[in-house]
Amino acid sequence: MNKDTDLRENEQAIEAPLSEDAAIQFIGQVRTPWIERFDCPRQGKMDGPECQLIVEPRWQDALEGIEEYSQLEVLYWMSLSRRDLIRQSPREDGRTFGTFALRSPVRPNPIGTSIVKLERVEGNVLTVRGLDCIDGTPLIDIKPERSLFTPKARPKPTDPS
Amino acid sequence: MNKDTDLRENEQAIEAPLSEDAAIQFIGQVRTPWIERFDCPRQGKMDGPECQLIVEPRWQDALEGIEEYSQLEVLYWMSLSRRDLIRQSPREDGRTFGTFALRSPVRPNPIGTSIVKLERVEGNVLTVRGLDCIDGTPLIDIKPERSLFTPKARPKPTDPS
Repeated sequence: MNKDTDLRENEQAIEAPLSEDAAIQFIGQVRTPWIERFDCPRQGKMDGPECQLIVEPRWQDALEGIEEYSQLEVLYWMSLSRRDLIRQSPREDGRTFGTFALRSPVRPNPIGTSIVKLERVEGNVLTVRGLDCIDGTPLIDIKPERSLFTPKARPKPTDPS
Repeated sequence: MNKDTDLRENEQAIEAPLSEDAAIQFIGQVRTPWIERFDCPRQGKMDGPECQLIVEPRWQDALEGIEEYSQLEVLYWMSLSRRDLIRQSPREDGRTFGTFALRSPVRPNPIGTSIVKLERVEGNVLTVRGLDCIDGTPLIDIKPERSLFTPKARPKPTDPS
């Protein structure tokens, strides 16, 4: 079976063409030990192997202050995945799940999100643990993990005290 | 000050033009009580007001099974934000932080991520709590919250047991 074009039993694809509503700009690249898709673990672990987030030099200064956070949220673009599946059969057994009820890379916008442990920052390179994507995956965002982050701007009248 | 074009004290923007490396397709829309950017809370709360995720009818079947998850991860496109800031001064006091050390909507790819509590599913409409974005924000993805999700596919040899 050609996994990129063929449907598994009971899988369902959308028929409309891909719309292009907004543009993503890649900000760097993820380096991991996993060269082929089959090698990648299904879910990253905080005690997994060290991986690198290589930020493009033009965005390097945007890392200023990131070392204060022990955990980061990382967004990346899973460019190898098809984007038209509505129902998927992850076990290839005819039982399907809706795409939004899965964390599969196959989704209308193949954006992966991981929470990683930040080990160190060296220039434009962040060494982290907790990823599960293929080596060379395009990087699209890095943010402090939500529970560790306190907004820096003044509170708004609508904010809970 | 025109917040969309002017820099605050010590803020720094990138000079290169926006590159367009990949295309996002909107899958629906977020409805919230906040009509203006200033009205939005800085961080969503699980006991915040009910909001709706309106999924385009063509993607509705991709929601199948989502009601099994009490919490979801939601990705949306903060289309009003500038995308070229490297250093930002959230308090407008001359002190800056790198963009990747903030969860500000101003970032190279203005993708917001929230963890929300799923209240109910009615057709193509999910009622949730925990959002903080403006009414009408384009929706780009919905996934089960990572800690609640167990991969449905067979384990791989590389997966920890």
